[in-house]
Amino acid sequence: MKLYNFTLAPNGRRVKIFLKFKNKEIPEQEINVREGEQFKEPFKSMNTFNCVPFLQIDDNTIISESISICRYLEEEHFPEPTLFGSTPKMRAYIDMWNRRLELDGYSPLGNAIRNKSSFFVNRVLAGTRNDIKQIPEIVERGIQMIELLFQRIDQHLEKNKFICGEQFTIADITGYSIFKSCELLKFEIPKTLPNTIRWRDTLYKQDCFDV
Amino acid sequence: MKLYNFTLAPNGRRVKIFLKFKNKEIPEQEINVREGEQFKEPFKSMNTFNCVPFLQIDDNTIISESISICRYLEEEHFPEPTLFGSTPKMRAYIDMWNRRLELDGYSPLGNAIRNKSSFFVNRVLAGTRNDIKQIPEIVERGIQMIELLFQRIDQHLEKNKFICGEQFTIADITGYSIFKSCELLKFEIPKTLPNTIRWRDTLYKQDCFDV
Repeated sequence: MKLYNFTLAPNGRRVKIFLKFKNKEIPEQEINVREGEQFKEPFKSMNTFNCVPFLQIDDNTIISESISICRYLEEEHFPEPTLFGSTPKMRAYIDMWNRRLELDGYSPLGNAIRNKSSFFVNRVLAGTRNDIKQIPEIVERGIQMIELLFQRIDQHLEKNKFICGEQFTIADITGYSIFKSCELLKFEIPKTLPNTIRWRDTLYKQDCFDV
Repeated sequence: MKLYNFTLAPNGRRVKIFLKFKNKEIPEQEINVREGEQFKEPFKSMNTFNCVPFLQIDDNTIISESISICRYLEEEHFPEPTLFGSTPKMRAYIDMWNRRLELDGYSPLGNAIRNKSSFFVNRVLAGTRNDIKQIPEIVERGIQMIELLFQRIDQHLEKNKFICGEQFTIADITGYSIFKSCELLKFEIPKTLPNTIRWRDTLYKQDCFDV
């Protein structure tokens, strides 16, 4: 198998963090998406969504989506230590928290960044080059959503070291990615949410993020 | 266990469709989210995200997020016929498609609906009652994103009966939910994308959607 990736891309980093946590390496090839390599063959045909990362499995099946790639690597190759959970209940609980963090935080912040930074002019939607315009109101909405998310999780984090409890999980990798997006947008976590700040500080000390 | 749900909510329907496909029933209680019952106890403390559906498991663990609920029910109680896949490779492949459809289709269309319909004034973000304003540009962006998604999947659907191949999966339930959102927004699939139209027509004939 081979991982096609671009290390500077946030979703590419999520897979790198996963592998660092597992202390594993797999064959890897960089695709420079800033230069548009993903629109050229053979990459164009391999992933018609024109994004990285994607994983080519030995029968040539392509798996894109960073979380799906990590899910496959854990189930098929690197089960321990688990990041997705070892019982149906824990898997569902971790999946729930990962979804909440992605849908209400990571994804709206990603949209905010792509609609704000001059770097993303003419590439507002991932995997495109077109004239779709940046919309300032989407930046504002992203900030509103992350404020709401942090308000919702702060009390939960008072009693939980990581977002799912004592155990570091894939949802914490999403959490870390949220905090990095906040940095890019220069959004500061309100001081009225001390448990969220404590969670960020706990995450920032984990070795696996040094990729 | 008990499922707390609101049958008219799109995410609530996804769990109902899952159960219909599996030909199973579980104890269920309606929460009228239109009347704001989710903000009252005991529901408020059970799901601090103030959304439906959520599942209370017998040890009182709460699982929210429709896909996480379905994942739990399949793994713990109703494995056959599978909707999430029976090998690591198929599980990752189905997960990838479900994520593509959710992140690039279902979620942006859901945002479009909440930013357009007068019904969602003062409840633009799910699980809130506040004065966050509807933004017409988010409706426009939702339409741009679904147009891109349909363009990306049409060729793939030429050779695939369902989105992951011959087998009906959880990603098709997401696909169905996309098409229902398109109906609400009065968005018609372009005639230049015949395979997408054929997929919709195939889905609309499946018994499980009659819930």
